[in-house]
This record gives sequence, C-alpha cells and structure tokens, in this order.
Amino acid sequence: MSIKTAITALSAILGDQLSLSKPDLEAHGQSESHFAPALPDAVAYPENTAQVAEIVKICNAHDCPVIAYGAGTALEGHTLAPKGGVTLDLGKMNKLLKINAEDMDAVLQPGLTREELNTELRATGLFFPVDPGANATLGGMASTRASGTTAVRYGTMRDNVVALEVVLADGRIIRTGSRARKSSSGYDLTALFVGAEGTLGIITELTLRLHGQPEAVSSAVCAFNTITDAVNAVICTIQMGIPMARIEFIDEDTTRACNAFSGTDMAQVPHLMVEFHGSDAGVAEQAETFGEIVADMGGTGFKWSSKPEERKALWQMRHNAYYACLALRKGAVALITDVCVPISRLAEAVEASRQDIAASPLQGPILGHVGDGNYHAMFLVEPGNNAEMKLAKELSNRMVERALKMGGTATGEHGIGMGKQDYMQAEHGDGWALMGEIKQALDPKNTLNPSKVVRSQPNNP
Amino acid sequence: MSIKTAITALSAILGDQLSLSKPDLEAHGQSESHFAPALPDAVAYPENTAQVAEIVKICNAHDCPVIAYGAGTALEGHTLAPKGGVTLDLGKMNKLLKINAEDMDAVLQPGLTREELNTELRATGLFFPVDPGANATLGGMASTRASGTTAVRYGTMRDNVVALEVVLADGRIIRTGSRARKSSSGYDLTALFVGAEGTLGIITELTLRLHGQPEAVSSAVCAFNTITDAVNAVICTIQMGIPMARIEFIDEDTTRACNAFSGTDMAQVPHLMVEFHGSDAGVAEQAETFGEIVADMGGTGFKWSSKPEERKALWQMRHNAYYACLALRKGAVALITDVCVPISRLAEAVEASRQDIAASPLQGPILGHVGDGNYHAMFLVEPGNNAEMKLAKELSNRMVERALKMGGTATGEHGIGMGKQDYMQAEHGDGWALMGEIKQALDPKNTLNPSKVVRSQPNNP
Repeated sequence: MSIKTAITALSAILGDQLSLSKPDLEAHGQSESHFAPALPDAVAYPENTAQVAEIVKICNAHDCPVIAYGAGTALEGHTLAPKGGVTLDLGKMNKLLKINAEDMDAVLQPGLTREELNTELRATGLFFPVDPGANATLGGMASTRASGTTAVRYGTMRDNVVALEVVLADGRIIRTGSRARKSSSGYDLTALFVGAEGTLGIITELTLRLHGQPEAVSSAVCAFNTITDAVNAVICTIQMGIPMARIEFIDEDTTRACNAFSGTDMAQVPHLMVEFHGSDAGVAEQAETFGEIVADMGGTGFKWSSKPEERKALWQMRHNAYYACLALRKGAVALITDVCVPISRLAEAVEASRQDIAASPLQGPILGHVGDGNYHAMFLVEPGNNAEMKLAKELSNRMVERALKMGGTATGEHGIGMGKQDYMQAEHGDGWALMGEIKQALDPKNTLNPSKVVRSQPNNP
Repeated sequence: MSIKTAITALSAILGDQLSLSKPDLEAHGQSESHFAPALPDAVAYPENTAQVAEIVKICNAHDCPVIAYGAGTALEGHTLAPKGGVTLDLGKMNKLLKINAEDMDAVLQPGLTREELNTELRATGLFFPVDPGANATLGGMASTRASGTTAVRYGTMRDNVVALEVVLADGRIIRTGSRARKSSSGYDLTALFVGAEGTLGIITELTLRLHGQPEAVSSAVCAFNTITDAVNAVICTIQMGIPMARIEFIDEDTTRACNAFSGTDMAQVPHLMVEFHGSDAGVAEQAETFGEIVADMGGTGFKWSSKPEERKALWQMRHNAYYACLALRKGAVALITDVCVPISRLAEAVEASRQDIAASPLQGPILGHVGDGNYHAMFLVEPGNNAEMKLAKELSNRMVERALKMGGTATGEHGIGMGKQDYMQAEHGDGWALMGEIKQALDPKNTLNPSKVVRSQPNNP
C-alpha cells in the first residue's frame, strides 16, 4: 500500500484526468505566501462527485494523501503536499447548478469562483456578499471559513453556507443541512465542514445564501492623524448600530504601497474605507451619522463615491493591497498575520503591533477588516533569509500572544493550514485535542489533507 | 459498575446537592408535551463547573447516564431519563458573569433564563434577542439551537452563541471559540455543541452576542382571508428586503384559541403579527412598505402598536398561544410538529397541512415563525388514547415527508430529543450515521443524554 499503487489504480480509471506532468505538480505544490514548495505526486481533475468519491476511496485504501485544491489563493499553505499524494483540483467542477431566486439561495459546485457566481447573479437582483479579496473558489472559501471586507454586515462563510454535499474519507457521500433557513435537526455538520480545510471531507457541492442587491450603495475614504483615531471611529460606528457593509483600515505604509501600486494620491496617513448599503434614505442617514463620527475623531479628506466605477476603483485598490504591499520590497515573500480581537481592544492591539514593527528592521504594513476586529501585518521577507524569517515569526508570535490575552484568535479568516498550528494549543487547550479526536473519528487513516489544522494522528504519524 | 454505585459515590461528595426525593425525580422526569414520564434515579444540583466535571467523570466511570436540565421547557422529551441515571439540574448555575458592553457580548452560566438576562441588560442599551416564547434557560436554548419569533432578523442560537465552556464525557473542561467576532481557527466546536442537546458535552458557560436596543419599535397585527394570502404577504416582504424583526402567523383555530385565552377580539381568520426595529425613519419606511404589501394581498384590520404596553400585550398573547391551544381541549396533551421549508414552498406546505388536518377528526391549530419558513401544528390528543396518538403521528409524518420533499427539515427549532428520531434517516441519510460516529468518538460510553438525537451506540445499546 503506497502512493505509487494508488496512482497506478487512479491512472487506470482517470486516464488523462490524472496528470503527472512536472509543471502541473509544481503549479499545485506552491503557495501565495512564504511556504517552501511541497509537491504532490499527481494531480487529479475530477468532473463529478462520483469521481471524487472513487478517487478518495482508492487513496484511502492505499494510504495516499488527498489534498483538495480550488484556486490556490490560500495564505497558510493549505494546498501544499508535504507528504506527497494526490492533489484534487476541483477546477472542472465549476458549474452553477441552480439559482432559487425566491428562496435567495444558489446550489453550485466547489470550483466556481465568487466572481463567476456574482457575474451569473447580476440579472437576478441578488448577490453573494462574502469577499476575501482574491477571486477564490467557493469551495475553498467554505473550507477556510473565509470572510473579508463585507463580513461586518453579511457575515462569513459560516453564516452563508446553508448546506453541503461532502465526500468522506471512506468515500461515502453525505449531504449536510437542507434548504430551510434554519434547523435544529442534529449536530451541525455544515458548520463542522466549513473551516475544516479539507481535513474531514471533500466539499463537492454547496448551497449558499444570497442577498438582495442593495437599492443604494455609497462608499467613502477618509484620512486620520493616528491609527487610534481611525480605530476609535470604527468602534464608535459599531456601537451606534450603523449597519456598515464594509469598513476597512489601512495604515500609512499600506497607503504608501497603494498609492504606488494603484496610482492613487492619498495622504500618507492611516485611512478608513467604508461602504453603506440600503435604501436611498437609509444610506444617506448612515453616511451622515458616520461623517459626524469621523469629524469628531479628527478625520479629514472625506471622499464619497456613489458612482459604480469610482466604487469599483476604490475596492480594486483595496483588493490589490496585498500585491501593493508585496511590491514595497522587490522579490520579497510575505508572512501574514491574521489576528482578530474583541472590538474594545482593537486600537490598543493595532497600536502595539505598529510600535513592535516600527522597532524592528522589517517592513510590516498593517491593514484589516476592522469592523470585525481583524487585521493583518504583512512582513516582507527576503526569500531564503532565515534571520529575517525568524524575526518575522517572532513579531507574529507576539501579535498572536497579545491577541489571545485580549480574548481574541490567532486567525480571523485565513485558517490554520501549516502556518498557524503552533498557536493552537495556546488558543484552544484541550479543545485542540478534541479537534484531533474528531479528525481521528472521521479520517482514521489521515488521508485528507494531512499536516493541516490538527497534528498528525497517532496511527499515521 | 452501575447507576447505584455512581449515586453512592456522588452522594459522598455532593451531600444535599444530590436529591433522591420522589417529587424531585417526578418533576425532572416529565415534559411539557406528550411523552410518558421517565424518571431519573437522582437529581444533582451542581454549583460550578468543577462540580459538573466531577459528577460527569464519576457517572462516566460507572455507566450512569447524565441528563442536563435547564428549565424543562423542551418539547421533544429532551430532559427525560428513559435509561434512568442522574439529572444535572443547572438551576444553581444561573449567574450573569460579565457584560462586555463595548464588545456587545455577555458571559453567563447555563441556568440563567433569557428573561433574567434581558432584565439585567435593560440599563445597558443592549438586549439578547433570541426568543423561543418560553422563559427557557440560555444553556437549554443553546443545546436545542432554539430560535423563535426574532430569528428572521437576529438569527438563532447558532448565530448568537460566540463561545462556550463545555464539560466532556470524560470530565475534561474545554473552551470553544473566543470573544473575537469571527475566527477561522480550526473546527467549529461552538457550532458542534450548539444543538447537540447535551449528548456531546455539558455546557457550563456561554458567551452570547448582544444587540443594541432599537431606537424605534413598531408592532402590528393584521387579518387575511386565507392562509395563502397571509403567507404570500410574508414571502413578498422578505423578497423586498424589509428587515422585519418578527413576523408570526396564526391560523383561524389559533386565533380562536388566543381570543379565548387572552381575551382579545380578533376576527376568526388567519393573522400575521409583525414587528419592525430601527431608527424612527427606518421603522416608518418599513411599516409603510409592509402596509402596501398587506393591502395588495387583501389584508385588513391593521392595528399598529408603538406603545410598549400594547406591544407587550401582543407578544404575551403570542407567547401564550401554546397554552391557549392546549386549552382548546380540556386535559389534552400536545404532539407538536416543527417543520421548516424553503420560503418559496411555505404557502403550499401550510395549506396542505391545513387540509390534511381539516380532513381528520383531530384538532390541530397551526402557528409559526413564517419569516423563517417554520411552522407548528399542535395536535390535541386525549392522554392515553392510542388511536388518537397514532393519528396525530400519521399527520405529523405526512407533514415531515412533505417538508423533506420540499428541501426542508423535520425540526426548525425544537430539536430531535426522543420525538423526531424516526425522521432522521430520511432527512440526513449517511449524515445521521456520521452524527452517530461523532457521538461515539466524543462519548464512547453513551453517558450523556442517551437515547436522544442519535440512536444508541453499538457498545452500549
């Protein structure tokens, strides 16, 4: 029983849906962040659930790891293959199967991306709001419990996945949830697979909640003298109950990076970018109250965009912030933090992180989804420079320790993958052991995405 | 190893916190609905988490069932003790431990009731919205994934439990989640225990999300000629994106019951009761649009209440509907259905149920949280009349089959307990087997609330 025998068996049934070509292995064995490449032995391109089940069954029988792969935009090395095996590229399973407009849900395959879904929804008056920036696949977004700029209003993938079809490690196909808007019907299996990073099962179909396209949308960007002023404006806005659709923070380094990358001319100070959704009157009311809060906090340079093309440019700039920051240092790779803290501690947390980074020789622009208490520092590290990587990890460790002390989490939206496992014991205590026990029960041979989320299992270390 | 030896051991450490008195056993061994009493052998009244852990550890060692008990308002026999054992009455663990007003969350013990919590929150400007009608404990509400009248706006317990402390079957104490508003940090253990009905662990502390008390509130009741008109008004309101805080349906039998029980004088036709929360302008806008929809559907007799005492009377009447319906037949017990269907199928489902019931000799008033697609028929059965109970179950079976065919669920908010297990195979297929495997992994000796949610486990049938 080995990876080799599994691949021989797969080859017989998959034909040219199984690739052993070096470029394919390399493309699937690298990631967007600082992790060293780790290549699979083969890449399978299944076309339907039955094929996924067959592949998983064969691999499980032969102790061959199976790594689900969407668009490869994960930031914690989720799709790498440190133990080799078969990468399951779900790109061919990218159909939108059904839009139930009256029920405001859609049924689709995991390889569909969020932008593709929203393009198809445009004429229906509905949209899918979860927006991690990258044009990730919806299966991947569910698997990392992704969120991003709109979670403050519409929630994360946890809140917007209604039901799933999942292939288990032994090849059984199950359905979790129903199309009802709520249920008390047993253990919440949907929630168990959302955020499981492909370690408990392979998501082969999703039912997602859709939302009505808002009647009116208004976006703005405004400048603050200090991080604390900007964050306090956010806290105040939340506490006033203003239903922001987006509220994003970029510090002065990120502002500088965006100006250079996207050709904007923001003042080199911290900024907030906000968006309101609602009726015409509702949006006007929200914008007015927000404007007063910003003025109270010394915010200036308010620019409102209600034209679609201006808004698009604004959010394109925000979505490109990752690449903009990367471009601050030529050839650098990024180690990205992802802490999330209770809102009341946010200003203190961001300010402490800023000072910590300022005292180090590394660049580490900060940006974040501050309406959720979630922010990222992007440490720009020279590839292969171990001293710099060590320093970046030390800075990251301190951010996480501080966040945990404040009642927060090591990862608000990127997931654990290979990069955040060292924090799990501190964050969850015996809860992490329990996660391992669940993994052991559902995937006793550790076939599904081994070395991610939980530590390796006792009977397959 | 037996229940008896467990009780002897518990008695030594608990003293008068362990009761063997007949009235205590009887009070904890009955339920609010049609199930035959099933008494525990003892009732324990722990005062803190350490005691809960000690009790569970002893019971687990001696193969003695442990049944968590809150206010006893569950409707599916969740707190009955069909295999005897020790009922863990959490009534002494009823402290509100902390209100984090800035973060809009509260930390509390499981025995606190939702009304007690809201009384304590009154001065803070915050409230806890989930409202199943009964003044249930918050631990119990989490355990059944309760919802009720406000879920259409504020979500269910799934959406409002941020973090938990849980005692596992082997006595380990774990914490799930953090106080951050979102997290991608591993398997969603919080969601796993919410709705697990005490079969996977005992909830000993909860962190709940709070919401701002709305600036303006307005409630209304209005009458419709037919069920279909009323339900279509709901569907239309949802699709217009009007953020109702509550939207409740009562059919003409329930209307008659409420008039008799609460002294109201509604016309004997189907009614909707609604509530809007928001700013003054927002509520006025919502109410106006809703009024137009109702008029389009032939609704009449609109009565708006913006005075707190009128609203209180309206919702008190709604909350008493269960007792009002019970009073329609003296001495009757109720078998209550709880299906939830996609909104687009709601009118069809309710109408088919209504016709089914009308063609039977049983009374079965219908009411529901129609904004979620969730409704209940209450079959009034003479105690001990097996023919009537058989008929009620047949009607219930048909409602569930119809709901499942429509993509719905057998239980929107009441849970499985002892009453809904027969539908689980049809609803979940292999997903139900997976629930059993999770139960087996977390509670291998089947100590925690046996005979609920999942079928008995292989090694302890």
